[in-house]
Amino acid sequence: MKAAFYTGSKHFSVEDIDPRPPAADEVQIDVGYCGICGTDMHVYQGHMDKRVGFHRIIGHEMSGVITAVGEGAGPLVPGDRVVVRPLAPCGHCPACRAGYAHICHKLNFIGLDSDGALQQKWNVPKHTIHKIPASMSLRQAVLVEPTAVACHVVRRSRLTAGEDVLVIGGGPIGMLVAMVAAHAGGNVALTEINPLRLQIARDLGVKTVMAENGDVAAAVHAATGSKGADVVFEVSGSRAGARLMTAAASTRGRIAMVAIHAERPEVDLFQFFWRELEMIGCRVYEPQDYDQAIDLIARGAITPHRLITDVVGLDQVNQAFAALDGNAKAMKSLIVVNESLAN
Amino acid sequence: MKAAFYTGSKHFSVEDIDPRPPAADEVQIDVGYCGICGTDMHVYQGHMDKRVGFHRIIGHEMSGVITAVGEGAGPLVPGDRVVVRPLAPCGHCPACRAGYAHICHKLNFIGLDSDGALQQKWNVPKHTIHKIPASMSLRQAVLVEPTAVACHVVRRSRLTAGEDVLVIGGGPIGMLVAMVAAHAGGNVALTEINPLRLQIARDLGVKTVMAENGDVAAAVHAATGSKGADVVFEVSGSRAGARLMTAAASTRGRIAMVAIHAERPEVDLFQFFWRELEMIGCRVYEPQDYDQAIDLIARGAITPHRLITDVVGLDQVNQAFAALDGNAKAMKSLIVVNESLAN
Repeated sequence: MKAAFYTGSKHFSVEDIDPRPPAADEVQIDVGYCGICGTDMHVYQGHMDKRVGFHRIIGHEMSGVITAVGEGAGPLVPGDRVVVRPLAPCGHCPACRAGYAHICHKLNFIGLDSDGALQQKWNVPKHTIHKIPASMSLRQAVLVEPTAVACHVVRRSRLTAGEDVLVIGGGPIGMLVAMVAAHAGGNVALTEINPLRLQIARDLGVKTVMAENGDVAAAVHAATGSKGADVVFEVSGSRAGARLMTAAASTRGRIAMVAIHAERPEVDLFQFFWRELEMIGCRVYEPQDYDQAIDLIARGAITPHRLITDVVGLDQVNQAFAALDGNAKAMKSLIVVNESLAN
Repeated sequence: MKAAFYTGSKHFSVEDIDPRPPAADEVQIDVGYCGICGTDMHVYQGHMDKRVGFHRIIGHEMSGVITAVGEGAGPLVPGDRVVVRPLAPCGHCPACRAGYAHICHKLNFIGLDSDGALQQKWNVPKHTIHKIPASMSLRQAVLVEPTAVACHVVRRSRLTAGEDVLVIGGGPIGMLVAMVAAHAGGNVALTEINPLRLQIARDLGVKTVMAENGDVAAAVHAATGSKGADVVFEVSGSRAGARLMTAAASTRGRIAMVAIHAERPEVDLFQFFWRELEMIGCRVYEPQDYDQAIDLIARGAITPHRLITDVVGLDQVNQAFAALDGNAKAMKSLIVVNESLAN
């Protein structure tokens, strides 16, 4: 079978290797599609070499079909069409014991800490599997994973219908958060520094907010009768986003911290006190978020596949990553891992 | 009657003025005690001159006895022993309309934005009044207001019995938060940079945490089986506190932001994402917090009067503020406003 190995410094090597049979409690999946996510780009750019290492197979946004099951992996059977929730918690740390296994202190994030989906036959633990309905194409299903991120953050934000929502950042996760928040009944506006991404948001039917003078917070307050946004999703990871999140929030507003802030920005803690703001950290997903994402996509309640801007074969993996690198217009690129499963 | 007027630059002028009768919906209170709080110290130090102005009567931590009632102020009657919840919201702003009148956008904080309790006969709106039980002395009751702050923040933190709690900052509010959190069943430890205040905490029966090497977060993790504090109360308003709050919190830990951060410290937003932390802003109190504070003090469940370190007459108001200024050993100073009500 073919597999794409990250070998360092913006390069993958596509190699022929022998598949291994699934172990006990594992299933083997013929991967149909594998999406490239922001974290994968970080790997590609070399920022995660210490964690990931070299000659490693990454990829965790995927869809596929089970082709073999290891001992004890029933009731799953060959032919099941599935997605993988790529989390393998330790089961023993304080987070696992408290019921937060998805953010286990020793989490194996499959596709980063162990081998991922950029291989034609992928073995994963059976507990990671979610089956998808017959009506859902593998091309739709590849977006279950990032949609589950959005379902998780919207759930944690306690968003209710009719609330005013600001999404800061218009990458794929920001777009998905906007879609899921709008489906939950939020009056959603998205802001983004890049005009190309703003246009994509508008094309997707997401309302955008930009101020000519750059004062997005003032524009949000003007649009909400001086109230501000009940829920702010900070997805930008920027210093500007960290400033805007407190400035745009309403009294008792909730700020969902979705972004990865690699640096420590200055934060207006006074506003947390003065207006009793809340900030709620959000990372990955729990099983129910996968269930919701599958349901929303299956019902056509949201249409994340509209984010797909590029689809190429596994042999073009280097071109696919290079085309995304620093390209604001590109949203979601898919790799076809097994041509026979493309649809 | 006598009243103490703040005249600017660390000075009060005690003057004889004519009392005015209570207006409609007002009651007139003979003030027994008035406590000096951190905000009053800020006024004294000149930091709030723009908001407060000059020749103004401050003071909002108080206890007293109603001596006259204006039209429509029933069922309150002369002789009622009371404390005042010193908030007069506008009733019309987005916060008031959303049910958060205590943090009204145009809040009149009585004792700062309008005249306060450092006068012998004080007129206040009837809706600010909470009666106290006969068993509670006026000297105990003067601490209802800061205790209600602690009740509010502990309630908003969603603390449950058995959780590990870290209080950052050992001033009067930090001490009261520690007392209320311990009563709620928290395993409370308090940290504070000043050894005098640490000793006071220990004298009050509050467990303290200090690390020889200054790494309080490591000490908290060591004491909680590598879990961290389920609830962190940041009461210090310092950059060190803003660093410690994320470092000491458990996965899914809640950080109650009690302090007034005048500057914008750097905050480790990555930890909010990585460990799904929450931050919950807390300001003043709602009516139920007053009810709880009165109940806790009346039952002897907590003993905030043990924080009282000084009691002087209204004529010594300048000495009282001067004695508190920069004095870590002083905790809570009371002014006796009407000698006849001292007990």
